[in-house]
Amino acid sequence: MKTDVEIAQEAQMRPIQEIAEKLGISDDELELYGKYKAKVALSAWERVKEQPNGKLILVTAINPTPAGEGKTTTSVGLADAFHRQGKKVAVALREPSLGPCFGLKGGAAGGGYAQVVPMEDINLHFTGDFHAITTAHNLLAAVIDNHIQQGNALDIDVRRITWKRVLDLNDRALRHVVIGLGGKAHGTPRETGFDITVASEMMAILCLAKDLEDMKQRLGEIVIGYSREGRAIRAKELNVTGALTLLFKDAIKPNLVQTLEGTPAFIHGGPFANIAHGCNSVMATKFALKFADYVVTEAGFGADLGAEKFLDIKCRFAGLKPDAVVIVATVRALKMHGGLDKKELGKVDMAALEKGLANLTKHIENIQKFGLPAVVAINAFPTDTKEELDFVEKKCNELGAEVALSEVWAKGGEGGLELADKVVEATKKPNDFHFIYDVNESIPEKIEKITKEIYGGDGVDFTPAAKKQLKEIEELGFDKMPVCMAKTQYSLSDDATKIGRPTGFRITVKELRISAGAGFIVALTGNILTMPGLPKHPAAENMDIDVNGKITGLF
Amino acid sequence: MKTDVEIAQEAQMRPIQEIAEKLGISDDELELYGKYKAKVALSAWERVKEQPNGKLILVTAINPTPAGEGKTTTSVGLADAFHRQGKKVAVALREPSLGPCFGLKGGAAGGGYAQVVPMEDINLHFTGDFHAITTAHNLLAAVIDNHIQQGNALDIDVRRITWKRVLDLNDRALRHVVIGLGGKAHGTPRETGFDITVASEMMAILCLAKDLEDMKQRLGEIVIGYSREGRAIRAKELNVTGALTLLFKDAIKPNLVQTLEGTPAFIHGGPFANIAHGCNSVMATKFALKFADYVVTEAGFGADLGAEKFLDIKCRFAGLKPDAVVIVATVRALKMHGGLDKKELGKVDMAALEKGLANLTKHIENIQKFGLPAVVAINAFPTDTKEELDFVEKKCNELGAEVALSEVWAKGGEGGLELADKVVEATKKPNDFHFIYDVNESIPEKIEKITKEIYGGDGVDFTPAAKKQLKEIEELGFDKMPVCMAKTQYSLSDDATKIGRPTGFRITVKELRISAGAGFIVALTGNILTMPGLPKHPAAENMDIDVNGKITGLF
Repeated sequence: MKTDVEIAQEAQMRPIQEIAEKLGISDDELELYGKYKAKVALSAWERVKEQPNGKLILVTAINPTPAGEGKTTTSVGLADAFHRQGKKVAVALREPSLGPCFGLKGGAAGGGYAQVVPMEDINLHFTGDFHAITTAHNLLAAVIDNHIQQGNALDIDVRRITWKRVLDLNDRALRHVVIGLGGKAHGTPRETGFDITVASEMMAILCLAKDLEDMKQRLGEIVIGYSREGRAIRAKELNVTGALTLLFKDAIKPNLVQTLEGTPAFIHGGPFANIAHGCNSVMATKFALKFADYVVTEAGFGADLGAEKFLDIKCRFAGLKPDAVVIVATVRALKMHGGLDKKELGKVDMAALEKGLANLTKHIENIQKFGLPAVVAINAFPTDTKEELDFVEKKCNELGAEVALSEVWAKGGEGGLELADKVVEATKKPNDFHFIYDVNESIPEKIEKITKEIYGGDGVDFTPAAKKQLKEIEELGFDKMPVCMAKTQYSLSDDATKIGRPTGFRITVKELRISAGAGFIVALTGNILTMPGLPKHPAAENMDIDVNGKITGLF
Repeated sequence: MKTDVEIAQEAQMRPIQEIAEKLGISDDELELYGKYKAKVALSAWERVKEQPNGKLILVTAINPTPAGEGKTTTSVGLADAFHRQGKKVAVALREPSLGPCFGLKGGAAGGGYAQVVPMEDINLHFTGDFHAITTAHNLLAAVIDNHIQQGNALDIDVRRITWKRVLDLNDRALRHVVIGLGGKAHGTPRETGFDITVASEMMAILCLAKDLEDMKQRLGEIVIGYSREGRAIRAKELNVTGALTLLFKDAIKPNLVQTLEGTPAFIHGGPFANIAHGCNSVMATKFALKFADYVVTEAGFGADLGAEKFLDIKCRFAGLKPDAVVIVATVRALKMHGGLDKKELGKVDMAALEKGLANLTKHIENIQKFGLPAVVAINAFPTDTKEELDFVEKKCNELGAEVALSEVWAKGGEGGLELADKVVEATKKPNDFHFIYDVNESIPEKIEKITKEIYGGDGVDFTPAAKKQLKEIEELGFDKMPVCMAKTQYSLSDDATKIGRPTGFRITVKELRISAGAGFIVALTGNILTMPGLPKHPAAENMDIDVNGKITGLF
């Protein structure tokens, strides 16, 4: 069997101008990065911004399990299916991070015959967007420490600087550091740390900004820390908002690439799905909606985290309204949710399947609570039996959700035609999209609604530390923003071991963080690592490039 | 008077394909980055590598003074002059670093009417080469700390890890840090620091590598530190040489842009001129020499540092032989070398000029010691008088060096025609190019030769610490490499205050560092800051971009 990178390398890519032409984007509106990548100029937006939007299809999933679900693969394959049907379509995805690429994952851009290409470039530096974020984030950090060094006119409390530094790598040794050592000429000693670039608030800002002006505004609003009197200090007070924005002048433009089947793919931005909202940029989605009749996009992790934040945060800020939601599941993963061990997933176990199916049905109910039609995509595995598939379909149908078997991994768009048809039908169903909470509710009220409505829990508790932060946030007037939940992705609850559809649980908020530039409050319900570590044998050890430029070990 | 950025923004740039065509580089051999930047594919090299080289002209300068010399401006203007004369010409320059751009300088790509464009892009992320270095450098650092965390099979001595981390920013608070804090899950606490990316050994490697294979080889040879037994540990022992090389797959390709007058400009790599050799990449120079009949390139700082290292390190590794050397000076700077205060440079002071001229004549002698013909370019200022200019010319002529007034800052290539003619004449003169030392001499012998021959000093001393390092380097077998001198740029000696042409001094080597991947030993003669700091009001504070994308404050 061919590996993903082998399949990708065999692809006959078309020049990116040909891909753009499918969407009516002219050569003049492209800024090429080599032959197969381009940024779409902002002038293209000016040309089409008054046109009607295409249909927006969100792809989400059950809570992830070690068995894997294939959300990106399904997104790409579904778009390819539309493409085969002659529809004007685009897929909008997140950019992968270099950290996991060199760590565990070894690259990620779909899988099998449903991938985006050139996968080597997309997985490495791509068009430099993440490097722009790293640079801007760290410039702001350098300016903060320089401000202190030069007299600290803002009276920044060195014990309360919340703005850390970032690198787009997995580097656990940088999680907790002391900087400014070495004496007077070398800064003021203080504790801080590094996050991975995708966890930077600037990543969230890039992905939520409407345009460069909005970006500048949001960058200025970032809270970098507090004065010794407790005043929140904004980035704009350091006078480098213009310089920061300048660093994003190209990064803000959506990137265009293609799938293996030549379907246009916007790949732009990639915020963490825990401490940020986990979707590609608003600009990429909006561009795609103006140029295509069908836009397939995805949100990080399971529907409880990714879809909730896509709907309550991204759609709220961007004024977007999805037309249908696809929930991806596999029979194997459902059996794991039913308690089956990973080694036993090959065998039929209807009791485990029924038990695990409750995870999927809860997500169907949740999507319906948002007023949206849901379609279930079962990502096919050779071990799936007809009995199992029929059972899943019957149960989903009872809830009013159509089910389609997706074979895009093995067959590309051809394997997603049934899914495409069912999705088109779903977009014609009644749509009563609304948010789960009102931003003007209190933070506890907002989190309680998410907990009860989406997670299926009984309520929410705040630790004493979180209560203190809540009080401060309310006093500072930051409480009327959406809440970005940071929770384990493995469970509907905040306990990763509670798989399936847990009940009778409460959520504990341990920390609240202000992302005033992004425009949300992050509620952390556990220890969320914002700087991953490398495993004993990092994926980087397998990677190589030979004299002819042939790459191995990515994937 | 227009600012540099205003002049640059008014430029009517040609599509980069048209610029490439002047050198016979086809569209197929270009990888576009937008409309005005491209990387030249390695296939172009394969096509031309057997062709004869064009003439190589090195532009260097007197020891820099606060009055400024205009070396890059002269390089660009000289190339423009050749271009006006209908010659097939290219200029090869270093890429600027983001750190100084946001710090003191606010951007740099020539000046006045002798600039390379698009200057905003060149000064910001350009084609991402520096970001690739930052990423690869820090990946290796992360892998080192991960190796220790996972059991430390190589027995790396955490007190003797020489591989630091880098950022392409001025950030003094990162010079001395402690990482790995926070407990067992977060690494092993140890002291380290961050350098600016241009100071990374990987930058030197990128600029010295012949091709990607050579790059991989050199990356593997990097000494990252020592085992507890004192064994030098190489990067290749950490099994990520392939991944590191992969990160450079695009960065290794030379970048092509244009001057304001449409002259092809290769801008590629930019190593520090103190702890590294300070010239653009070997690949860019070699590409340029195959495609152009005249190639103008520059080396960092004054001729004692920049030209010496260009000739003894870069030319040695790359098998290059310059055809002429241009030494840039200004009458104002010469008067400063003669002891005149910066405020008084507008007045005629023949005594100060004569005294300061000794700095220039020493550099002429030095270039002749390398067996090369020298031409002096006097970068014109409105305050220069005929008497002063005649005096400079007479003194240089006595040494056998032609002198030309360069007015390229004000007039572009038109202002460099006389210089171009004199340079062409110089390339026809006898050329007996040879190195100042033999790599097989001992390190003290090599440094002594440089000191006596080039700096005009009496000899070299080693501090006790440097003597200890010398012994270790000899025991490890690293002593048969060229020496990369790290010395103040302001004086021929290692004392910045000794301007003009000092005599009777000795050089003190305080530290020796192994750059086994780059292939040289760095000899530090003072405190060389490898991570700059920001000034009280960083240049970043003046930068902005408006709704129409118009940029201000760069320069």
